[in-house]
Amino acid sequence: MQRILSEQLPKHTGETVVIAGWVHRRRLLKAVAFVIVRDAAGFSQVVVTDPATRAQIEAVAEESVIEVRAEVTANAAAPRGVELTSPRVRVLSAVRVPLPVELHRPALSATLPTQLDHAALTLRHATRAVALRTAAAATEGFRAALRRQHFVEIHTPKIVASATESGANVFRLDYFGRPAYLAQSPQFYKQMMVGVFERVFEVGPVFRAEPHDTGRHLAQYTSLDAELGFVTDHRDVMRVLTSALAGMAAAVEPWASLAVPEEIPAVHFTEALRIAGAPPDEPDLAPAHERAIGEWARREHGSDFVYVTGYPMAKRPFYTHPDPADPAYSNGFDLLFRGMELVTGGQRLHRYEDYAAALEGQDLSAFAGYLDAFRYGMPPHGGFAIGLERFVARLLEAPNVREVTAFPRDLHRLIP
Amino acid sequence: MQRILSEQLPKHTGETVVIAGWVHRRRLLKAVAFVIVRDAAGFSQVVVTDPATRAQIEAVAEESVIEVRAEVTANAAAPRGVELTSPRVRVLSAVRVPLPVELHRPALSATLPTQLDHAALTLRHATRAVALRTAAAATEGFRAALRRQHFVEIHTPKIVASATESGANVFRLDYFGRPAYLAQSPQFYKQMMVGVFERVFEVGPVFRAEPHDTGRHLAQYTSLDAELGFVTDHRDVMRVLTSALAGMAAAVEPWASLAVPEEIPAVHFTEALRIAGAPPDEPDLAPAHERAIGEWARREHGSDFVYVTGYPMAKRPFYTHPDPADPAYSNGFDLLFRGMELVTGGQRLHRYEDYAAALEGQDLSAFAGYLDAFRYGMPPHGGFAIGLERFVARLLEAPNVREVTAFPRDLHRLIP
Repeated sequence: MQRILSEQLPKHTGETVVIAGWVHRRRLLKAVAFVIVRDAAGFSQVVVTDPATRAQIEAVAEESVIEVRAEVTANAAAPRGVELTSPRVRVLSAVRVPLPVELHRPALSATLPTQLDHAALTLRHATRAVALRTAAAATEGFRAALRRQHFVEIHTPKIVASATESGANVFRLDYFGRPAYLAQSPQFYKQMMVGVFERVFEVGPVFRAEPHDTGRHLAQYTSLDAELGFVTDHRDVMRVLTSALAGMAAAVEPWASLAVPEEIPAVHFTEALRIAGAPPDEPDLAPAHERAIGEWARREHGSDFVYVTGYPMAKRPFYTHPDPADPAYSNGFDLLFRGMELVTGGQRLHRYEDYAAALEGQDLSAFAGYLDAFRYGMPPHGGFAIGLERFVARLLEAPNVREVTAFPRDLHRLIP
Repeated sequence: MQRILSEQLPKHTGETVVIAGWVHRRRLLKAVAFVIVRDAAGFSQVVVTDPATRAQIEAVAEESVIEVRAEVTANAAAPRGVELTSPRVRVLSAVRVPLPVELHRPALSATLPTQLDHAALTLRHATRAVALRTAAAATEGFRAALRRQHFVEIHTPKIVASATESGANVFRLDYFGRPAYLAQSPQFYKQMMVGVFERVFEVGPVFRAEPHDTGRHLAQYTSLDAELGFVTDHRDVMRVLTSALAGMAAAVEPWASLAVPEEIPAVHFTEALRIAGAPPDEPDLAPAHERAIGEWARREHGSDFVYVTGYPMAKRPFYTHPDPADPAYSNGFDLLFRGMELVTGGQRLHRYEDYAAALEGQDLSAFAGYLDAFRYGMPPHGGFAIGLERFVARLLEAPNVREVTAFPRDLHRLIP
């Protein structure tokens, strides 16, 4: 007999069925035992009165995997209005040790390090599993929104020859006896691919040898990257980003409510400093400034999101396009989500001469292949990168990105 | 005025429009010049008679990026039955150097190493771009087929603490002063996640320090991984794989025709040896054997695909489930596509005791976190991994996987 999922039980009332899943909880009363079985769709209640079956259930601990052949009986007090009676149980995988963490309580009471140490177990808890389902849905919402706008998905190298993008915080590895580095972003490659498809996106891991031990940094995270050609300036990039966020918000609706305004409020960097009460000569926004601007956006515009445009060129990477009206400022932007930087983006340089000038004094051979794209014709273009884990953490109000990452990597953690 | 794409021109006949793209080819005749402009959707023909515009066109080389404001005029001999007349041209990005490779010919004549050296340019050629569009479509076809069957997408660590999965061919890196390795596959993590979601998939890079310099090995490739719980044996895994391949075949239809039989023929390893004319005590299939079995499948079953099941346990990884009827053989399989191994998969062990026995004599602490999943209850499960680049290469009859990879990584190549 084919196994069915718990959600299908009501329509089989009165029939004999087979379900299977994890022993979520046992209640061993005197005359009867109740077993709550968890599967991918939810919970089933199994009522055990037969002594032999009861002995089977008593012999295995919570999280054991069992298969149950039983009758579906109406019971208004049970989950979905049905329970399973007269069960015959087959133990597929017996747990014979105490669990380090209890899963059947509404919240995980273990400390975060303990949760992460026992990820194979704790990720089964609803709060952790929902965060990962939300991440999966957001990822697909991002991709679907961009596919509708004719973006083409790409896969780019994660092993690169030089640490040219920023120079700091890179992991070094041995590549067949030569030094190489883990890519901090697909930046160079997605720009090159604008020359091929005009519009590209990539979902993939990026690597930062982050010395910061904070709730918002990881050594590996999932970057949702996009890049598009034939833009007028960074505002075309922001429009696509806004549409991608709307797609993500729609996709996560089963788990979280998120309103993306059709036009997200945007403030220039100089104005952002004023709102944050920061000195007008600050070259960048500190986390406290970002929080203040986030509060302002909520108060003044009722928006969880706010663009800060026109960051000073001094603080942006070499490929950033300056603001033609004031070249001390850039056509680069950040998007703050509930007071935290979630996205960095902007218009990029597209002429070879501009790259040669921006990299003056540096060894151009370290950029071999990348600069080719500009030598051989590139349109005005720009793009952005969304940090998936930050998005989900902020959305679900998790204070630490590790709570929404299956197997986080950081300064201290390399297992599991 | 908003730029339109070349494919939209016919419905604007008689109007003034703006197009933009790359100068694909110029034909400078005496009284008239023709410029073929390439954009994301195809080609437009621009007719230049005005001397000033002609001088602009003469001053820039092929692959320059231009914007053209012109009138759409019917001409049955032109692409899509229209051409652009009375153009005003704006050069967005001028190419002033000779191109190392000509792009306007039907085939790229440069050698493969030259093509790869100049990837930013050569990927713009139709043959290369189509391969990458096919890869993007196949990837999405894979994901969509699995989402329909309630698989959840996961993102797992690419940096791992030990080279436990196979021990050989791993890249070593410096992880905050500690040794670490690049993941050869998401195998351990996808199995652990079966305990969370029952059915999971991942699309991501995997890394092999492959000492082989062949047309079918890369140091980084894209692995399409899936894993599912509550299987009876490997045949349930094969059914899901067949459905994923059908989804991929449907998705690549614009570029390649591929028939996936509802039931792909399957032969046991011992029978496969006989078909290949190999000695009955061979422990594995050599490439020549795979070719012979592929020819047999085409001849006897009219199928591009054939499963080889029941590989000897001796040649499969420790987590492989034995065939209960003959434990010298496994519930592991390969899928051959046109005579080449494309997929490896199978049923895995699911009981902690079986892992402890399979790893006897090894230091179990190297598997910390992974073995937890089995200690705390795991269902019978299995999965598979499809090599994306191999699939596309075989599909498009490219003899070398590098021809269908944007920026390949191998023994010799680390740039671009």
